[in-house]
Order: sequence, then C-alpha cells, then structure tokens
Amino acid sequence: MPRYALLVEYDGAGFVGWQRQETGLSVQQALEEAAARLTPRDPVVAVAAGRTDAGVHADAQVVHLDLARAIDPLRLREAVNFHLGAHRVSVVTAVRAPAEFHARFSAIGRAYRYDILDRRARPALLAGRVWHVKRRLDEAAMQAAAALLVGRHDFTSFRAAACQAASPVKALDRLDVAREGDLVRIVAEARSFLHHQVRNLVGTLKLVGEGRWTPADVAAALAARDRSAAGPTAPAEGLALTAVRYAADPFA
Amino acid sequence: MPRYALLVEYDGAGFVGWQRQETGLSVQQALEEAAARLTPRDPVVAVAAGRTDAGVHADAQVVHLDLARAIDPLRLREAVNFHLGAHRVSVVTAVRAPAEFHARFSAIGRAYRYDILDRRARPALLAGRVWHVKRRLDEAAMQAAAALLVGRHDFTSFRAAACQAASPVKALDRLDVAREGDLVRIVAEARSFLHHQVRNLVGTLKLVGEGRWTPADVAAALAARDRSAAGPTAPAEGLALTAVRYAADPFA
Repeated sequence: MPRYALLVEYDGAGFVGWQRQETGLSVQQALEEAAARLTPRDPVVAVAAGRTDAGVHADAQVVHLDLARAIDPLRLREAVNFHLGAHRVSVVTAVRAPAEFHARFSAIGRAYRYDILDRRARPALLAGRVWHVKRRLDEAAMQAAAALLVGRHDFTSFRAAACQAASPVKALDRLDVAREGDLVRIVAEARSFLHHQVRNLVGTLKLVGEGRWTPADVAAALAARDRSAAGPTAPAEGLALTAVRYAADPFA
Repeated sequence: MPRYALLVEYDGAGFVGWQRQETGLSVQQALEEAAARLTPRDPVVAVAAGRTDAGVHADAQVVHLDLARAIDPLRLREAVNFHLGAHRVSVVTAVRAPAEFHARFSAIGRAYRYDILDRRARPALLAGRVWHVKRRLDEAAMQAAAALLVGRHDFTSFRAAACQAASPVKALDRLDVAREGDLVRIVAEARSFLHHQVRNLVGTLKLVGEGRWTPADVAAALAARDRSAAGPTAPAEGLALTAVRYAADPFA
C-alpha cells in the first residue's frame, strides 16, 4: 500500500489529544476518518511523530498513513482538508513517502514551544494558546536554571507516572527561555521526550521565574530522580509541537 | 466625574464590532456593562479610538470612560476583566486620564495590521485571524503598488458608501507589505482612516499580488475617485487595530 507523509497543523483545544480515546474526539480519529473517505472500504491508520496530550497544539506535526490505492498527494491534502470540515486541523503538506518511512520511529528530533503570557490582564487574543501567569517572571533566572537541565540526564523527576518509555534517561539538546514583551517563550529540543516532560520542566522553571526556587533547587530536583521533588505540570494549552526532524526530510 | 483611559485587547469574532448595535453584542456594550457593575446606579459610556467593524480584532484599542466615583485604576482593570466573564475582551492597562483626554478626538495616529495566510491549506491555528488566499501572492508587486498609495490623496475609491467622514481626503503615512513565510502582512498608518479604507486597500493590493492588476492599475483606481474603480473589500477577520498614538501617551 502506498505510504504518505503529512505535515499537520492543529489547535488542540477541541481534542482529547493526538491519540484515539474512548472519551472523545482525537486528532488521530478526525484525520483517519477524513482520509478514509477516499478509500471507503478500507480503514486508515495514522501514526504521528509526537503523541500530543489533550489541549496541546501542533504547528507542524508529522503523520504517516497508508492508503489502499495511490492518490495524488495534492489531491489527498485537498480532500482530507475538505472532509475535516469544521475541525481545527489542517494538512499543510502531503507527499508520497518510502515504505520504510515511519513518522514516529524515523524521527531523530522533536521541538516544542511553550508560551507563557506574563502580565496581570487575562489573555483575549491568545486565550487557549498560553499559560497565563500574573506574577512578573525573571526570565534570566529561568534561563540559568534551564541551562542546568540541558544534556543527558535521568529525567525521572520530570516524568509523568503514566510514561511508557523504557528508560528515564534522555538527552535534552536545547532548553531556552526568552522574553518577547509580555510573552515568555520556552523552546525545548530533544531526540524524544518523556510523557509530560516539557510541561514538567516548564512548571519547574516557573517556580524559578517567580523567585520561589533558585537554579540550584532545580539541579537538586533533577538529581533526586523523584517526580515529587520537581515542580507542578504546566497546563497543556501553552504547549505546541513546532518541528520534527528526520535524517532525510520527507517534505524536502 | 473622574476619567479613565483603557488599553483594550479583543478578538472581534464574537462581536458585531466596537459600536453598539441592535443586532447583537458589541465590544462597547460588553465593556460598558462590565464597568457599570462598579457603579450600579450610573450607566457608563465608553468611547474608543477606532470604531472597528464586526470581526475586526484589536491588539491595543484605546478607550476612555467616566465613572461616577473615583476607583483605583488597578482595581478598575481587575474588576472589569472579572465582569467581562467569557467574552474575549481584556483590559490590559487602566489609568486615570485628564478630563480633556478623548480616546477618539485626541488621537493623532492609528495603526492597523492586515494578515493574509498565503498557502493552499486552510488555516487551523490562525482560523479567524487571517484572510486565507490560496494563490501565491507577489508581495514585491504589492509593495510597489502600496508605495503609490502613500501620501495625501482623495481616497473616495477606497471608501465605504456608509462612510460618515466629512472629507475623503486623508494622509496615508505608511502602507507596507512584507512576507513572513506563508503570512503576508500589511501595515497601514494614518492620522485617521475612512470607513473600510484598510480593507479596501488590501482587497485591491491582493489583485496586484495575484498578477491580475499592475501597480499602475492601482494608481488609476485611486485617481478615478470612484469606489467601483478599486478592488473588493477584504474580509474583516484579517484586520487588527495595533496601536493608537496621542501627543501625550496616556499610559506612559
């Protein structure tokens, strides 16, 4: 069966997350049902690079799927977008992919962005896209703490209890904190992440930004290898998957 | 009565525009009702710098209002935001203003941004915030045409029939077109604008971007002083009021 790679954008607000759930509509289900309209007798299975949680957005999720018959990728994109109807999901690009391409297992890097709106007034234009933090954050202190987390570590302290990864050891390639006006943006890059890792890192960095923790406290939390030693999980709505890297870019 | 100046952000999607209408909820009504909760026996009248149309957004609208009694501006901001409830409006800043400050008549400059999402795939994350144009636009040609519109002109060709301005002559201080990836952003600045002027300018520049009009055609449309000589009105949802200038910044 011919394989396709899709670059997909979505607003996580209306979904239970990427992955199919009994509890509601997932991005996976919406995409699979839209694609299956092209091959009505054959169900479609979509595999994503990052299994984003409920409420988490994607600027550029990568998905692969196999179709029962070959379809022009431009037509595939147009048809899937048409059948997605009012769902806030859009296939930005669709290409034929080699049979060995796997959106999840072929990926060699993932990038996430976490946005904090750091001001007293609630968000209007950015509602649902940011974590609203009223207290003024010290982004320089947050960056100093972030620098201590970069590298290969046992991230047990930042790992959700439900995490299914075989090992808590991950190499965090980048964790940067920068202010753009009232927006504090955190960028995280790694080959792969543990469940809730970015949100747990952000929830901990926020404690530093508020002056409640020092960067040394963050290093101690990492060393403790105990989830209860680190800060709380930041809300899903501030998080977006922004890029997935492959040895050979399927969209190039 | 003490006067206050407010810096206000809103998503225009849920509103019939800034100004009160019989047909539905305006930003003005939502703000006035929220502010009046502070002085229940006295209605509040809010005056805005720019009377944005239905669907038009504001990053930084400026509003003034008078209250029956003096209230700490920080408390005013918090209380109005609280009473605005689920409406996508937020008072970002509130300050006491001199009695002679008038949000509309004291303004000496207004800036608008118009965003076009220029790609085949429909918007997911930017739905409701952009004009979706599928054909690839030539932003350099659009910029060349825009340069011919800058300056003091009779803008009758870009003026809505319902426009109440005394004169169609306006000085357009800036009209810039720039591409940021798939986003074509148009920035317009003037002391004041005619009704629908920015949207009519954008609708005309889009014809140039598509190669259907030349910059010279735009100059001819301007010279015609006839609305039917120019292009169509661009949709409201791509437009946002981004700044209002005063001789003395009330928020400084």
